[in-house]
Amino acid sequence: MKATYQNLVSQIRTKKSMLCVGLDSDISKIPERFLKEQYPQFAFNHFIVDETAEFTVAYKPNLAFYESQGAKGFEELKMTVDFIRNNYPEIFLIADAKRGDIGNTSKHYAKTFFEYFDFDAVTLSPYMGEDVIKPFLEYENKWVILLGLTSNASAGAVQFFENNHGKKFFEHILSLGQEWGTPKNTMFVVGATKAEYLKDIRKAAPGNFFLVPGIGAQGGDLEAVISNGKNKDGGLLINSSRGIIFAENPKQEAKKLQNKMEKYLNFE
Amino acid sequence: MKATYQNLVSQIRTKKSMLCVGLDSDISKIPERFLKEQYPQFAFNHFIVDETAEFTVAYKPNLAFYESQGAKGFEELKMTVDFIRNNYPEIFLIADAKRGDIGNTSKHYAKTFFEYFDFDAVTLSPYMGEDVIKPFLEYENKWVILLGLTSNASAGAVQFFENNHGKKFFEHILSLGQEWGTPKNTMFVVGATKAEYLKDIRKAAPGNFFLVPGIGAQGGDLEAVISNGKNKDGGLLINSSRGIIFAENPKQEAKKLQNKMEKYLNFE
Repeated sequence: MKATYQNLVSQIRTKKSMLCVGLDSDISKIPERFLKEQYPQFAFNHFIVDETAEFTVAYKPNLAFYESQGAKGFEELKMTVDFIRNNYPEIFLIADAKRGDIGNTSKHYAKTFFEYFDFDAVTLSPYMGEDVIKPFLEYENKWVILLGLTSNASAGAVQFFENNHGKKFFEHILSLGQEWGTPKNTMFVVGATKAEYLKDIRKAAPGNFFLVPGIGAQGGDLEAVISNGKNKDGGLLINSSRGIIFAENPKQEAKKLQNKMEKYLNFE
Repeated sequence: MKATYQNLVSQIRTKKSMLCVGLDSDISKIPERFLKEQYPQFAFNHFIVDETAEFTVAYKPNLAFYESQGAKGFEELKMTVDFIRNNYPEIFLIADAKRGDIGNTSKHYAKTFFEYFDFDAVTLSPYMGEDVIKPFLEYENKWVILLGLTSNASAGAVQFFENNHGKKFFEHILSLGQEWGTPKNTMFVVGATKAEYLKDIRKAAPGNFFLVPGIGAQGGDLEAVISNGKNKDGGLLINSSRGIIFAENPKQEAKKLQNKMEKYLNFE
């Protein structure tokens, strides 16, 4: 299924969910029974996806956990993407890669994530400016997800750097991102632990989807995130990683989150 | 050889060179004779390194060109690193990866570049703050290279964002980077096309090495870069990629640059 804005919104309405499951499939944390398999990370992801897909609109493998396994990890990530594509074609697929380079290098990153892997979206760091995202936006029905305001403790020292009009650096990035792309191809990462900022951020970028990590393990408040951050089309993909995939019962955890989302979203 | 500050400085003095060769080994650009090999990117790198190592203090493979070949590219990069380690142990090895994540994710990136690959240094984007670099600095004799002022056209819109004291965003990053690390484990990327800024940047970060891309294809002026940017220990790694590796005679091009560096550096 093409990753159009409309298809993403339809999926959210159908499943009554904004849930994105982070496939941070750390080999040192996956249950022992998968380690006997030839492709343990893939086997684990296969299990997690089958358990959670009915409640989930997006999966977000984090590249670091595959790269640290070398070429084999890269292969298992490819198997994971192919498996989801073939069995759950409606699902939106995000590479959490936080890449950010320019020119021919950036083209090759786009090629990696949109051609070698068939992801729908990639997280990018906008430090090097518009050159970073241009090659990605040349692909139709593919997305970039720019770092905006992140959920970690040390983010403030960088992202709250403020100009003489009181505009913070991350707000400057929200403005630039909207010049570079459109709500049909550009999202922003906005951390759930910064829920108090979400109202203003939604005003500053009314049409864009936000990818919101930090629910669960990092302590973000789901109700505040949804009420402060949603727009008329939903406009949020809310990520949980460890809280679901390493839970005793991943299906139950995914269902629990979806139920809460359905409640707070108030879809008719 | 351990990648200590002292060993890097010694190598620069011995070879009378600050040359870093960028192994941007784009499969669509490497000469045809290598494409017949089972591992064409590795075979090409092997050739380039043998031709240029006597003039070179560092190699800098850019991850994008390997990732876009999938698991096989990852393997060929590993073969490249192992080959250089075993045959030219004095060489400083930089992963041009521009990663930047936090927590356990960042740990896994550090594991990728310092354990799976045995690189000495990794380029990182500081957008997410100190959390990005912490796990990397836990390794002894390993380095982070933070994006500072980059050489591309669209960088200014982000990196020149200015606070009410006239401090630019990239200058803020230079300050933060010096709080987070030391000149023994932290470098900055400073583009050669911004040579006019190099004098001030050197004043702002007197002790740190700068990795300077943008010589050659991007048009930076080598003499200005060295006279504005050097410090008492050299303090510069000056990168050329395409200008050397895709030249008709890579050895000659590397030698030419080394000769110029020797002249401008004025080592006794």
